[in-house]
Amino acid sequence: MIFHTFPEERLRNFTQNVFLRMGCNETDAALAADVLLRSDLRGIDSHGVARLSGYIRLWEKQRINAAPNIRVVHETPTTATVDGDAGLGLVVAPFAMKIAMEKAAIYGTGWVAVKNSNHFGIAGYHALMAVERDMIGISMTNASPLVAPTYSSERLLGTNPMCYAFPAGRYPPLVVDMATSAAANGKLEIAQRSNSPIPEGWAQDKEGRVSTDPAELKAGGSLLPLGSDKDHGSHKGYGLSATVDILTAVLSGANYGPWVPPFVAFLEPSANPVGEGLGHFFGAMRVDGFRPAADFKDHLDNWIERFKSAKTIDPEKRVIIPGEPEYAFEQERKVSGIPLIDAVVNDLNELADKLEIARL
Amino acid sequence: MIFHTFPEERLRNFTQNVFLRMGCNETDAALAADVLLRSDLRGIDSHGVARLSGYIRLWEKQRINAAPNIRVVHETPTTATVDGDAGLGLVVAPFAMKIAMEKAAIYGTGWVAVKNSNHFGIAGYHALMAVERDMIGISMTNASPLVAPTYSSERLLGTNPMCYAFPAGRYPPLVVDMATSAAANGKLEIAQRSNSPIPEGWAQDKEGRVSTDPAELKAGGSLLPLGSDKDHGSHKGYGLSATVDILTAVLSGANYGPWVPPFVAFLEPSANPVGEGLGHFFGAMRVDGFRPAADFKDHLDNWIERFKSAKTIDPEKRVIIPGEPEYAFEQERKVSGIPLIDAVVNDLNELADKLEIARL
Repeated sequence: MIFHTFPEERLRNFTQNVFLRMGCNETDAALAADVLLRSDLRGIDSHGVARLSGYIRLWEKQRINAAPNIRVVHETPTTATVDGDAGLGLVVAPFAMKIAMEKAAIYGTGWVAVKNSNHFGIAGYHALMAVERDMIGISMTNASPLVAPTYSSERLLGTNPMCYAFPAGRYPPLVVDMATSAAANGKLEIAQRSNSPIPEGWAQDKEGRVSTDPAELKAGGSLLPLGSDKDHGSHKGYGLSATVDILTAVLSGANYGPWVPPFVAFLEPSANPVGEGLGHFFGAMRVDGFRPAADFKDHLDNWIERFKSAKTIDPEKRVIIPGEPEYAFEQERKVSGIPLIDAVVNDLNELADKLEIARL
Repeated sequence: MIFHTFPEERLRNFTQNVFLRMGCNETDAALAADVLLRSDLRGIDSHGVARLSGYIRLWEKQRINAAPNIRVVHETPTTATVDGDAGLGLVVAPFAMKIAMEKAAIYGTGWVAVKNSNHFGIAGYHALMAVERDMIGISMTNASPLVAPTYSSERLLGTNPMCYAFPAGRYPPLVVDMATSAAANGKLEIAQRSNSPIPEGWAQDKEGRVSTDPAELKAGGSLLPLGSDKDHGSHKGYGLSATVDILTAVLSGANYGPWVPPFVAFLEPSANPVGEGLGHFFGAMRVDGFRPAADFKDHLDNWIERFKSAKTIDPEKRVIIPGEPEYAFEQERKVSGIPLIDAVVNDLNELADKLEIARL
């Protein structure tokens, strides 16, 4: 594969221009670009600028409102429900997370469910907002129905990620940011592009037979929950995905299960929605609501050190602290730039031509 | 295997007598018995009265304080940290969950971290307390270090369960109650008793080699995180287990990671603890903090119906709603009694003789 490396700022300006052209105001365009860039910086290439044309596609179909009236529609001292007014999830999610943090600042914790939103980028971006304020950040979203529950051949759930982010002391934040499926959709796309088989346990065909062909997903097959099969705990991955679906959508009034409006191009939204848009859920908990933040950080540092020094099976592979690789990517790419594959660069330049903005 | 079936009340009285003999007051003995009985009623036989001799073993070693001064040691309007004073987790956990619910009643949500506790039974018991009040209940605990993080041969984490319980309308509560390991310890014990191999992906030997021998765990091997191996997402199971460990113990001041005082008889507590006892974490969120409870329940019913009617792969196996089998067990066993295997009955009667109380 051929990579072109771009300085962060160049890619950021380009991305902002796309969102401005979509009709976002300056603030929203800068914020949406920041969420996507953070993903590329952190090495999560599948969720960064590579998805720009996907957002534009939904905007062209009038499924994204570039100038939304995002507002709180229900509230208690520590909870709120936000209506995203079909705005970019990249903008709606930070709005909601800020409310959670404001409530946490006063009451110790804050919790916000969001309906009527769209794809929010990486879950880690939003959870990490809380960490900067010595809070534990939690973020979840439901997603395109592509995952079958245990024993079923139907796509009823999304890869429904959950993220927990914790502030450490001498170490970078510990960030658990994970899809609740065995593998994310992006991994199948990579395998499909390179004509490689996928491991057994990631997907099944439309009849529910185990398949190693990544193309089966687009042919009516489904992703499998974390655990892959019942013997290995796929009912747990299904349970986690269900938890995310209920917290993000049944609680907020968004669509859930097979009714979630899909981001992927090969699926159409349901003709009979059960709610509004897709759903998110955010939480912020002040660490000092439980113990002094310095004590928590000292012990989390100790936790991290113990796990970093764990005895390894293969001397080439040491135990990884959740969030550590993404942090390392971020430090490096801020300096040396963000590599994009040829196909993504071409896609972005076609987008630029269509939108009549400067090419990358 | 030979089963003896006991009416719930007979088993409850016996269990209460054991806790009274241990030195618990009437209220605590009744509560501790209720937690264990609920587990047996719900079909989670590994966590019910079969564990009574385990609690007694820890009490004899003076690791359980039968008359604890359980108290809040840190607090904000929606958060608290509880010191369990080395009490039975079966008593400490409901104490903490009640505080979470009281805070939720006033502020919308309540969150309680617990240190200096012991094994708390099934996570579902505590989370279900909230459901009775139209709240979403969350409960977690860390546990005996038996699970190795991805790439390691060291036992650094527990099976660290997380539980989310949601109130439905026409259906029983939806309860996701799961260990974050591929399989729970109890499943290995059952396999070991019957001399059966376990599936690949549940455990490894002390060198980190995949093993199908359930005896390897007691010989220095380890359980594997949900996902089983890196290709199938074991780093996600490890991340979830880490999340539970941090919320329950790093946040509360309990022991974490390999320092967690073990419940299993074949491990000794660390000589250099980093905190006090083991840790729990509880949350309660008023559903009507987000939307009217009736709307939430209607939509959760709709969710449940859609998943119950999902297209199945094998006509013998339909999609199961999390918590549904446990609810069915509970309805049935309340009427027809609780079956115990011979070995458990003998164990309980030996316990009765030792404690000089009436046999079962």
